[in-house]
Amino acid sequence: MPDSVYEDYPPTLNPAQKESLVRTVKDWATQNGLMVRPAPTLILKESDPHGVLATNAPVTLFPSPFPRTCFEEAKALQTAYNKLYAAITCNEEWIGKIMEDLIDVDDFISNLWKVHLAVQKEGYAQTLSLGLFRSDYMAHTSSSSPGPQLKQVEFNTISSSFGGLSSLVASLHSELLDSPPGHPIAYPPHPLLSSTTVPENPAVETLSAGLAGAHTAYGPSKSTPSVPTCVLFVVQEGERNIFDQLALSRQLTKVHKIPVFRLLSSEVLDHTSIPNSNPSRPLIYHPPHASEGIAFEVTTVYFRCFYTPADYKTDRDWEARTHLERSAAIKCPTVLNQLTGSKIVQQVLATPTGPDHLTSFLADTDPTTISRLRNTFAPQYDLSLDGQGRELALNPSTATNHVLKPQREGGGNNIYKTAIPDFLRSIPEKEWKRWILMELITPPATAKNVALRSDGEVLGGGVIGELGVYGTILWDQAGGKIHHNEQGGWLMRTKAKDVNEGGVATGFSSLDSVVLF
Amino acid sequence: MPDSVYEDYPPTLNPAQKESLVRTVKDWATQNGLMVRPAPTLILKESDPHGVLATNAPVTLFPSPFPRTCFEEAKALQTAYNKLYAAITCNEEWIGKIMEDLIDVDDFISNLWKVHLAVQKEGYAQTLSLGLFRSDYMAHTSSSSPGPQLKQVEFNTISSSFGGLSSLVASLHSELLDSPPGHPIAYPPHPLLSSTTVPENPAVETLSAGLAGAHTAYGPSKSTPSVPTCVLFVVQEGERNIFDQLALSRQLTKVHKIPVFRLLSSEVLDHTSIPNSNPSRPLIYHPPHASEGIAFEVTTVYFRCFYTPADYKTDRDWEARTHLERSAAIKCPTVLNQLTGSKIVQQVLATPTGPDHLTSFLADTDPTTISRLRNTFAPQYDLSLDGQGRELALNPSTATNHVLKPQREGGGNNIYKTAIPDFLRSIPEKEWKRWILMELITPPATAKNVALRSDGEVLGGGVIGELGVYGTILWDQAGGKIHHNEQGGWLMRTKAKDVNEGGVATGFSSLDSVVLF
Repeated sequence: MPDSVYEDYPPTLNPAQKESLVRTVKDWATQNGLMVRPAPTLILKESDPHGVLATNAPVTLFPSPFPRTCFEEAKALQTAYNKLYAAITCNEEWIGKIMEDLIDVDDFISNLWKVHLAVQKEGYAQTLSLGLFRSDYMAHTSSSSPGPQLKQVEFNTISSSFGGLSSLVASLHSELLDSPPGHPIAYPPHPLLSSTTVPENPAVETLSAGLAGAHTAYGPSKSTPSVPTCVLFVVQEGERNIFDQLALSRQLTKVHKIPVFRLLSSEVLDHTSIPNSNPSRPLIYHPPHASEGIAFEVTTVYFRCFYTPADYKTDRDWEARTHLERSAAIKCPTVLNQLTGSKIVQQVLATPTGPDHLTSFLADTDPTTISRLRNTFAPQYDLSLDGQGRELALNPSTATNHVLKPQREGGGNNIYKTAIPDFLRSIPEKEWKRWILMELITPPATAKNVALRSDGEVLGGGVIGELGVYGTILWDQAGGKIHHNEQGGWLMRTKAKDVNEGGVATGFSSLDSVVLF
Repeated sequence: MPDSVYEDYPPTLNPAQKESLVRTVKDWATQNGLMVRPAPTLILKESDPHGVLATNAPVTLFPSPFPRTCFEEAKALQTAYNKLYAAITCNEEWIGKIMEDLIDVDDFISNLWKVHLAVQKEGYAQTLSLGLFRSDYMAHTSSSSPGPQLKQVEFNTISSSFGGLSSLVASLHSELLDSPPGHPIAYPPHPLLSSTTVPENPAVETLSAGLAGAHTAYGPSKSTPSVPTCVLFVVQEGERNIFDQLALSRQLTKVHKIPVFRLLSSEVLDHTSIPNSNPSRPLIYHPPHASEGIAFEVTTVYFRCFYTPADYKTDRDWEARTHLERSAAIKCPTVLNQLTGSKIVQQVLATPTGPDHLTSFLADTDPTTISRLRNTFAPQYDLSLDGQGRELALNPSTATNHVLKPQREGGGNNIYKTAIPDFLRSIPEKEWKRWILMELITPPATAKNVALRSDGEVLGGGVIGELGVYGTILWDQAGGKIHHNEQGGWLMRTKAKDVNEGGVATGFSSLDSVVLF
C-alpha cells in the first residue's frame, strides 16, 4: 500500500488549473509573508538599489504524502532527542574526546573548540543553555521491512531554520484544500486531498516560547542601575531568509511582549559591551538608533549565523563569538551545544559497534524509548584504519548503498554511491577523518510534486522529502537540570531528485507540508 | 494651538535612526502583506517574466497628526452620508435630470446612463443594491474659523480602495509607537508620539461584512437545481493594488466562509452566463479551472474596475457591464449608484443657492445632522452662463482660491488657482460644463512627513493629508428600505505638496495613519 500512494499523486493539472493554482499560491505568499528577498541571480543589485523587492519562498503546489506512523513517531521522540543532546552538551569531556581527532584537520571545529576552552578557563558566566533544535528525517522504505521506517538525516543544534515559513506553508496548503470554503475546487479531485487535512504546525509558537522561556529564566537585569532586558537575534548580512526569522520575533514581541533586536554578526563588537566592573558579565546592547545612553541587557542570544565557516571572515568574528560566549546572556546555542550537532556526534551515536553511548546519556529514560531512538539511526561509520567504514566505502559494490558526508553540520558537498571510492583516493588519507560514511536512506521512489520557485518557474517531477521536527529545551549546564523540554512544529522540505544526485541548477528545493496516510 | 502641532512634527531622524526605521518599515510591509506589485518603471517585465516580485506599498514613516474633532465628525456623519447616497440612487428621475447636461459632452457618463436605460427597459432583476463607500475629507483651516473644519473632497461610490492596506498601515504605526514593547525607541522621543495611539481601523471587517451582508440577503440559489453561491470580484488586468483587494476576500473566506472568486473584466462574458430559461436571471460563474460542469451562482458582484473610461476598451466591455447589470446578482455598485459619485452630484448638493436637495433626500433625518453634513461641503459651482461659478473662475483674483475639477469621479487633471482662467479660455466654451469649480480647501500649511516609496526612495517634506471614512449600506432600490447601514474604518492618504501643485514625479503619495490631537 504505502508506495502506491505516491503512484498517482499529485493529480494532473490542466493549463487552466495550473495557471489558477500558481497565481493563487503566488498571491497568497505575498499577502501572508511567505517571502524571501530575491537572489542576485533573479534581480541584480543595480535594479533594486534600495532592496525593496521580495518574492515568494520556493513552495510546492501540493502537500506531500507522508506516512502517519513516521510523522507521529518523529513528534513522539523529539523531547527524548532534546534531552539526549542536552545531556551530550553537559559532558564536556566526552565532546572533547570526540573532537580531538578533528581539531588538526578541521579549522572550523578547532576554532569553535578554542572558544569553549577560552571561556572555560575564565569560567562561564551563564550555566543555562537554550536549544532550539530540529531533527530531520526521511521515510525509509526497504525490502527488509513491511512498512516505512523513520530514519534520521541530521540533527540541527544551531540556526534551525524555516519554522516561520513552514507554518505558513501548512496554512497555505490547508486553505487550498478547502478553497473556496465548503466547495473546494482549487485542487483537482483526488482521494488523498479530499479525505484529509494538513496537521497543525505550531513551529512559530514553540520556537518563540522556547526563547521566551529563556528570557524569563534569565531573571532581572544584573546591571546597576538595572536596564530593560531583551532578546538579541544575531544575524548574517544580506540574509534572504529574513521573513522566517521575523516570524519568531513578531511572536515574541506581540504575544510575549519581549523586546527583540536584530544585530549583524559583524556589528556585535560595535554595539554590545560587557562592563568590566560587573563580575556577572551582563551583555549590554546599545541600539545605534536609540538616543544617547539608552541600553538593553541581553537575556538570550539567538544565533541565526555563526553556523558555517563563511560566517567567520576574520579574527574579529571569532572575537565576537567569544565575547558573546563569555557573557551572562543565555546562548542559543552555546559553542558546546553547537559542536554536538557535528555529523561526527551523530556517527558515534549511530555506530552499531562499540560502547552504548545512548544508554549512558539517557540513563533515566525507559529502554523502549531508547530503542525507538536507536531505530531512527541509519548505520554510520568513520573511516578509521581498522573500521568497517573504510571497507564499505572503498568497495564499489557496498559504496553504492552509501553517502559520504563531511562531519561538519550544515553540510553540502555530499559524495554519493559509486563516486565515493574515487573521491577518497583523490584526497590525502589524513583528511579521511573529516568524512562520515552513512548508509543511504531510500525514500519512496515514485514520490512526485510540483514546485513554484522564487523566480516564478513552475517545475514538476520526482522528489525526495525530508521531515524536520522542532524541539526546544532549556537546561542547566551545571548539573544538567532541565527547566523546560517541548516539541512542536515541523518542516517538510521537498527537493527535486536530480538536485540530490548532481546538484543540477534546473531543479528545486521547496518548502512543503504534509498530508498523512 | 492646532497649527503649532505641525511645526515640529515629525521629529528629526539622524542617519542611524532613519536607516533603522526604514529597514523596519520595509521588512514589516513584506512580512504583513502591505505590498503592491512593482510598477513597470521599477522592474521591467523582462526582468520578472513570471510576475513574482512585490514591493512595499508607499507608506509614511510616521502617522500624521489629525484634529480629533474632525476625525470623530467624519465617522459620526458616515451613516448619514450612506443614507444620502442611497436616497439619491433611488431617485432615478433626479439623476436623469442631473445627467442630461452631461450626456452630450461626456461619453463615459452617457454610456453608463445607456446601460441603466437598457436594463430599466427590460426591468431590473435585482432591487437590492450594495454601496461600499468612502467619503474623503481634509482638515480645513481658515482665518474665519477658530478651529479646523472637516471639508469633503469627494465621495466615492465605486471601487473605494485601500481599506485592506490602510488597516495594515494603522497596525504598522501602532506597533512602531510601542517598539520594542514597553520601552519604545523606534521613533525619536516626541510628545505627540508618546502620549497617543493610532485609532483602531476596522476597514477590512466593515467592508467585508458589507459584502457578506449582501451575500446573505441574496438568499438561496435561484437556479434549478440549485448551485453553491459566491461573491465575485470583477477586477482589472495587471492590478498592482491586488493585495488591498485580497485583504477583503481573505476576510470573506476565513471569517464569513463565503466562496470568493476574482474575474478579469475582460473575461466576464467568457466565464459567466445568465440562463435564458430562468426568469430570475441568476448570474452563473463557471470557474475555468474547475472540473466540467462545476458552477457557482453569484450573489454579489463587487467592482474593482469599470470605474474609469480606460476600463472600457471596446463595446464588449460595455456589453459585459450591461450583462452583469441585468443579472439577479446584487451589484456593488449599480450603474445608477456609480453615477451618483460623479463630481456633478457633489456640486449640485453643495451649491449654496437654489433648491435644498439635502433636506429633500434626508426627509426623516434630524435637521442638526443635515446641517452638520452641509458644513462638510466646500462651496462648489458649475460654469453655466448665468452662474456665480463662471465669474469666480475667470477672475484671477477669485480663481486663486479655487480648483477646477472634471465632474467625473476618479478625477486627476485638476486645474489649480491662477491657471484656471487661461485654461478655460484654451478650451471650447461648450466643454465648460464638464468642469466644476470648487473653493480650495486649505489644509494645515506646515504639515510634514517622510515617506518610503515603492521604489525604496525615502522622501520628506511638506504634505497634504486626506482622510477617508468607509461606510457600507444595503438598500432596496424599490421603495428605499435600508437593510443595513454601517460605518467603520478609515484611510489616511498623504501627498507631497508639490504633487498636488504640479504633479512632479519626484514627489510621493503614500498611505498613512493618524494620531489625533
